[in-house]
Amino acid sequence: MSGKGMFQKAAIIGVGLIGSSLAHAMRAAGAAKTIVGFDLDPDVRRRAARCGAVDAVPESLDEAVRGAGLIVVSTPVGAMAGVLADVAAKADEGALVIDVGSVKGAVVEAAARLGARVAIVPCHPVAGTEQSGPEAGFATLFQHRWSIITPLAREDEAYRAAVEKAAALWRAVGSQVEIMDHQHHDLALAITSHLPHLIAFTLVGAADDLESVAEAEIVKYSAGGFRDFTRIAASDPVMWRDVFLGNKAAVLEVLGRFTEELALLQRAIRWGDAETLERVFRRGRELRRAIVAAGQEKDVPNFGRD
Amino acid sequence: MSGKGMFQKAAIIGVGLIGSSLAHAMRAAGAAKTIVGFDLDPDVRRRAARCGAVDAVPESLDEAVRGAGLIVVSTPVGAMAGVLADVAAKADEGALVIDVGSVKGAVVEAAARLGARVAIVPCHPVAGTEQSGPEAGFATLFQHRWSIITPLAREDEAYRAAVEKAAALWRAVGSQVEIMDHQHHDLALAITSHLPHLIAFTLVGAADDLESVAEAEIVKYSAGGFRDFTRIAASDPVMWRDVFLGNKAAVLEVLGRFTEELALLQRAIRWGDAETLERVFRRGRELRRAIVAAGQEKDVPNFGRD
Repeated sequence: MSGKGMFQKAAIIGVGLIGSSLAHAMRAAGAAKTIVGFDLDPDVRRRAARCGAVDAVPESLDEAVRGAGLIVVSTPVGAMAGVLADVAAKADEGALVIDVGSVKGAVVEAAARLGARVAIVPCHPVAGTEQSGPEAGFATLFQHRWSIITPLAREDEAYRAAVEKAAALWRAVGSQVEIMDHQHHDLALAITSHLPHLIAFTLVGAADDLESVAEAEIVKYSAGGFRDFTRIAASDPVMWRDVFLGNKAAVLEVLGRFTEELALLQRAIRWGDAETLERVFRRGRELRRAIVAAGQEKDVPNFGRD
Repeated sequence: MSGKGMFQKAAIIGVGLIGSSLAHAMRAAGAAKTIVGFDLDPDVRRRAARCGAVDAVPESLDEAVRGAGLIVVSTPVGAMAGVLADVAAKADEGALVIDVGSVKGAVVEAAARLGARVAIVPCHPVAGTEQSGPEAGFATLFQHRWSIITPLAREDEAYRAAVEKAAALWRAVGSQVEIMDHQHHDLALAITSHLPHLIAFTLVGAADDLESVAEAEIVKYSAGGFRDFTRIAASDPVMWRDVFLGNKAAVLEVLGRFTEELALLQRAIRWGDAETLERVFRRGRELRRAIVAAGQEKDVPNFGRD
């Protein structure tokens, strides 16, 4: 777990929830002597400086990456190809460049075109909250969570060492690490993260459109279950727009499975098929129990909020 | 809010999460001198006695309701028509009988056939957790939540007084009270509670069926969003089976709205329509903010669990 002194300087490009959390976590682990942040949005730069997420906020990407042994690209997925190209051209030769995007196929493809001047290691820490911006970050976000690495098809020793270093960084901030190919990542995350978000956004949209039930009523009676969905539906709209555009094939695949299952239950409701309903409903408890046992969820009713 | 001494004896029929919570809450409010519980399942009776959810656990429904000024029917919705008929025949004349079912049309219909020997006031406290059984109950479950009353079509003074008394009971345990017709209740709850549960059960089922992603992976990466859905998908399968069978028309109606909205987003993903995605996704934050402002949700990231 010790990551003390891994880097003299680290640069965070895109200082939102994940970028600022990684900065806090690296500082807590002593992983970098200096951590600078850069963001295209001047307002985010000002806020990042004010809230102390990073040590300094240079005015340009060039200045941010110069002399940095580690560069973290933590922008929305749609901006990554461009930012990675910029970083690959301007960073010190041999620098370790990681991204933290929720979709990996698009990143791997973009990175593969950029040559071997820097070592780009695509990563995805499976952690987050519904909040965004530099103020939302905190040092413990990655603890007990899994970080996935989907390496490029590079066989050289320097790249292998870079992947190891990226894994060591994630372990230093409290994550467990899994290495897999980007296709499998994109399918696994489509079901565990992208589809849940899509469904939550859909439910909120459907409720919003229901002219016979007022929004005030939806708010009042949301403790019946609806409020749970609004947490992830409150996540950053731009980040999620990019995830769905960037992981189209896998999302459409798992969405097909979901609508098949929904049609099965719809039919069971329409025809009063009690056994099918009960059989499907019984699976939920088992899976919840497994998630709690794996330390990915607290074992308290109502998420402990009451 | 004071409900001190409202009843000499209260009887809880069906001692699960809601029944035992109401018993604890009434005891905390001093609303009944004695609270007895009855359950068809002898194991639940034993557990209810052991965990102290109620003061006594008679061996029969007759004995439980005899002399009780308040009878709470807190069984799954599918069992209510039968239990209400039994209670109406055996309770003291003029007793207040409330149910706590998540569907009201079926209860109102059953109750309307039972005459006026007792005053049946259909209620729905919009509160709960994913746990079940007599040990799961706690006194504060109804605090800051809404309890809905859907009165029968009875115009007599005694019935009006009974509705008032039921409302006073809910206020005594910390709820706010709303009175509406059962049709509107069943539609409003279909969107705020029944559909969210159906979707959560569906997602768990779809994940379970996905042969290319192992259950262990779903568990590991569940912090990406999936885990949120497993909370309500872990709710009592029999209770929920009955809700969907009992509220078929309204559930199918809101489910139709949901699948329309889902088709819209599916199409936007397929055709790369970034604007539509972002526009729908932006609604989530506003609704979440309204729910937090109304005191129906805590204002902390990740439900405060990290």
